[in-house]
Amino acid sequence: MLKAWIEAQPRLVEVAAGRAPADLVIRGGQWVNVHTREVIPGIDVAVADGRVAYVGPDAGPSIGPQTQVIEAKGRYMLPGLIDAHMHVESGMLTPAGFAAAVIPHGTTTIFHDPHEVANVLGLDGVRLMRDESLIQPISMFTQMPSCAPSAPGLETTGAPISAGEVAQAMGWDGIIGLGEMMNFPGVAAGDEQMLAEIAATRAAGKTVGGHYASPDLGRPFHAYVAGGAADDHETTSEAQGIARVRQGMGCMMRLGSAWYDVETQITAITERGLDPRFFILCTDDSHSGTLVHDGHMNRVVRHAIACGCDPLIAIQMATINSASHFGLERELGSITPGRRADVILTSDLTALPIELVIAQGQVVAEAGRRLVDCPRLDWPDSARNSVHLGNVLTGADFELPAKGDQVRVRVIGVVENQAPTRALEADLPVRDGLIEAEGEICQIALVERHRGAGGVVNGFVSGFGYRGRVAVASTVAHDSHHMIVVGTDRETMAAAANHLGAVGGGVTVFRDGAELATVALPIAGLMSDQPAEEVAEAAQAIVQAMQDCGCTLNNAYMQHSLLALVVIPELRISDLGIVDVREFRIVDLIV
Amino acid sequence: MLKAWIEAQPRLVEVAAGRAPADLVIRGGQWVNVHTREVIPGIDVAVADGRVAYVGPDAGPSIGPQTQVIEAKGRYMLPGLIDAHMHVESGMLTPAGFAAAVIPHGTTTIFHDPHEVANVLGLDGVRLMRDESLIQPISMFTQMPSCAPSAPGLETTGAPISAGEVAQAMGWDGIIGLGEMMNFPGVAAGDEQMLAEIAATRAAGKTVGGHYASPDLGRPFHAYVAGGAADDHETTSEAQGIARVRQGMGCMMRLGSAWYDVETQITAITERGLDPRFFILCTDDSHSGTLVHDGHMNRVVRHAIACGCDPLIAIQMATINSASHFGLERELGSITPGRRADVILTSDLTALPIELVIAQGQVVAEAGRRLVDCPRLDWPDSARNSVHLGNVLTGADFELPAKGDQVRVRVIGVVENQAPTRALEADLPVRDGLIEAEGEICQIALVERHRGAGGVVNGFVSGFGYRGRVAVASTVAHDSHHMIVVGTDRETMAAAANHLGAVGGGVTVFRDGAELATVALPIAGLMSDQPAEEVAEAAQAIVQAMQDCGCTLNNAYMQHSLLALVVIPELRISDLGIVDVREFRIVDLIV
Repeated sequence: MLKAWIEAQPRLVEVAAGRAPADLVIRGGQWVNVHTREVIPGIDVAVADGRVAYVGPDAGPSIGPQTQVIEAKGRYMLPGLIDAHMHVESGMLTPAGFAAAVIPHGTTTIFHDPHEVANVLGLDGVRLMRDESLIQPISMFTQMPSCAPSAPGLETTGAPISAGEVAQAMGWDGIIGLGEMMNFPGVAAGDEQMLAEIAATRAAGKTVGGHYASPDLGRPFHAYVAGGAADDHETTSEAQGIARVRQGMGCMMRLGSAWYDVETQITAITERGLDPRFFILCTDDSHSGTLVHDGHMNRVVRHAIACGCDPLIAIQMATINSASHFGLERELGSITPGRRADVILTSDLTALPIELVIAQGQVVAEAGRRLVDCPRLDWPDSARNSVHLGNVLTGADFELPAKGDQVRVRVIGVVENQAPTRALEADLPVRDGLIEAEGEICQIALVERHRGAGGVVNGFVSGFGYRGRVAVASTVAHDSHHMIVVGTDRETMAAAANHLGAVGGGVTVFRDGAELATVALPIAGLMSDQPAEEVAEAAQAIVQAMQDCGCTLNNAYMQHSLLALVVIPELRISDLGIVDVREFRIVDLIV
Repeated sequence: MLKAWIEAQPRLVEVAAGRAPADLVIRGGQWVNVHTREVIPGIDVAVADGRVAYVGPDAGPSIGPQTQVIEAKGRYMLPGLIDAHMHVESGMLTPAGFAAAVIPHGTTTIFHDPHEVANVLGLDGVRLMRDESLIQPISMFTQMPSCAPSAPGLETTGAPISAGEVAQAMGWDGIIGLGEMMNFPGVAAGDEQMLAEIAATRAAGKTVGGHYASPDLGRPFHAYVAGGAADDHETTSEAQGIARVRQGMGCMMRLGSAWYDVETQITAITERGLDPRFFILCTDDSHSGTLVHDGHMNRVVRHAIACGCDPLIAIQMATINSASHFGLERELGSITPGRRADVILTSDLTALPIELVIAQGQVVAEAGRRLVDCPRLDWPDSARNSVHLGNVLTGADFELPAKGDQVRVRVIGVVENQAPTRALEADLPVRDGLIEAEGEICQIALVERHRGAGGVVNGFVSGFGYRGRVAVASTVAHDSHHMIVVGTDRETMAAAANHLGAVGGGVTVFRDGAELATVALPIAGLMSDQPAEEVAEAAQAIVQAMQDCGCTLNNAYMQHSLLALVVIPELRISDLGIVDVREFRIVDLIV
């Protein structure tokens, strides 16, 4: 475990003075200085107790017989990269699995909001995520989720988060602040619980994550800002990003697996020449495939540079800017005395090959190969057995009875490449007293899985294009993460749902009663025990299986997992019923 | 009293939303935005509970019948200016007197280190300075003095500061961090008390003020940096300033009454184009005359601009940079929601006329005229009666007995325009068994005044040029602030010393047994009860009186007050004897 700075201080002085040997010395590098924004050649770095002790022209006096010496050979030494806001669950990985995946990419610090786990396991889940984060060889800080449930009254989470729990968590080690305050209408309206959560965070001297996902820059925006959020990563245009920074917030520009918000905003710096210090890079959501094939924060920095950003500014936006934002400027984010010794060696500041990675003074990766263990928590049964179905499901659980020959029903209309759905209506036939989906319309079911109540809410969805007897089930079902089952056949839907119940959650595709592909996510029904490579492969198999069943959507899996996201219009499904998000109310399925 | 942000938050939201009236609205200004570094025209600002609630195009909905409305008429609105490091005692004023003097100049935040008071009154004195600071209409944060005595073993203060007291003070409201850690050799050598004081400050999450007054950028510098100081204001060249910032420290560039360190360092930004965010402006020491005639931080910002600095960068260096340095970026330093409503209206960003000053939402000055009271503490007797002479002094107290006709003695040689003295020697006659000063050489005496021990240490000084029967006495005697008496006549020296004892301290000039001029400094022997204008006038009368007595030195008073500064070479006087600062030891007066 890394010593606190105050414990390391006396030895840092001795090593800096040249009176005691360092643990590690890097010799002869080009110092990428993110404080002055310059590159200084011919620099040595001495490290003791996981922290930088000395940065200067000659660390020779700090080299003893036991000192590990790394020859930089003129390569650039830049601070380890920081992801300022993200959710590890998006990679279907636990903190350990995520750390293992990103260490070779040069990420040495992560600020993550375990919002998904909180929806399933409540405060206990946050603590477990924090616990695994704290034992990683890189720095992983946890943001306390603020909004679980995301839409009180419209859905039921596994365990709701209260303002009191937020205040309690602010006293925990490793909790760096409040996770994205996404209830922006609530804040702007002066909702007491939301304001109390923010106030508790500020009272603890910590940082309030923001999330204002609206293009409206009028009064609601100003009211949200006054509520106290310190940053926002939901901005997608230059004007939105600048508006946040002008108001004293950090603008977190994200490049995630499905977010492309850097290019549209970085012109604030590259063209308008604004002060870049409050612009910050992050990923928000990275799928395992992205981590395995494309990278992590190195991908984001490279992209910013490709967008025309000065490489030193791009690096600042993924190091010192992020550290300063969280009040950690003296703890990490630069290669300077006292800070955690997080260093990347690279021979090119634009292409940014990650040749060597040091985290907290330890060489953790070289040439793309991870050299350290990322310890896993012994996740308790409460986390591993989170899929409580109540009863074995049968086709009857998915029956929708009706009278007459035909009924008019509401249908969730999936829109290609967009998160919002459309509230459609369709006339469906009634056969033997049951409504039958047909044509482009499938059945959708929200299976309650937190309390074993056995509740199934049934409805209809269009846009997936499934053919034959198909069912796709997933316990990744934002934000309350019950189980969403979409299918063309009730028996197959039951089989898929029961399979997920048996494996503890995940995503599965069934056809004709048989399993085509499964990603098992036994931890909270959201995260795998397996390495990112295997998860990425299994997730790819799911996509392939969905296509094999006739689905032609891009990001079909993501569309599936967002069908219960009752904060984004127009029509959704929850454990409480069909939700018209335009009016924030439960509606009847039959019109 | 200003409400804490968490208490103000709900109302800020209501005002920002336009659902509740503001206390104050500024209409139609040009917003000097220190986050983006740009000027945005046509902006309104709404203020509630002393904090900014809304900044945007139209605060109309926030204007109620009781709302005070100020028409900016297109003038610039810039954040109130911040002095990031200074000592109020240098103005011979208490915090109230200092605040009163600088408010019309647009200073709305001060970080001050009551190092001088701490030397006289110890921790109690720090608390009193903090108490008066907290009741001012502007924001005054107190840094806990770190080094009293400055030179343990070579001088005796009124009450030493311990590491335990530093840790205790870190829990007090209004204590923002540790005052300048000037024992830089101690830190570099790993001195336990110094490292413990720094560690206690960091453990409290507060900022450690630095002071590395040496041109040596080798190992001692690196060891000092590793010790944990967060800033330095002792840098005087571009190379020194850049070295600090590269190492992750803030470079505080000062323009005080006698410090001119901005012009020599600001080239780091104006010519080298370094990132300016960690460069900060401060005054360190301002005499009352400077405050009355020249200004305060407005003088510093104007000077930075005159040195070629972009006005917006210069303003950042006196606002957001300083606030961020102390971790107060969300509390003050910019005109953005949630921050203290500290606003200057000016019609010119270069000449910077301070036309209107708002502090914590209150109009505190207009057109150079202060509009608010700066409340004074009821200073207790322990602070008001700090000059304890033990006995009434007579000429005999200043006698230096010797045998023979002549002796060789050490002489403190004052050097024009420099703080260091020279260790001189001279042959002086002995008459009636007493050594007699003659020619350029005067007597100097250090009169113990903290414990009433009656101790007088006598010696010799050259360079003042006094003629006739003259004595100058001062209880401003850095750093332990006993009483320094310089004179040509022992009876006159006694008269001057007794006069200061009677008025509770200050500075006085006597000739032929009669008082020529006096600045009474009854609080701790360092600070006046009077307004800056009167103090400045009295201080000017002292300078005139010293000249009338034959003194030709520039800054003669300052030279006088530094004669006991036993941390700066070469020869000094303390209550323990004559000190050779080259060797840090007490030496005999007679060679």
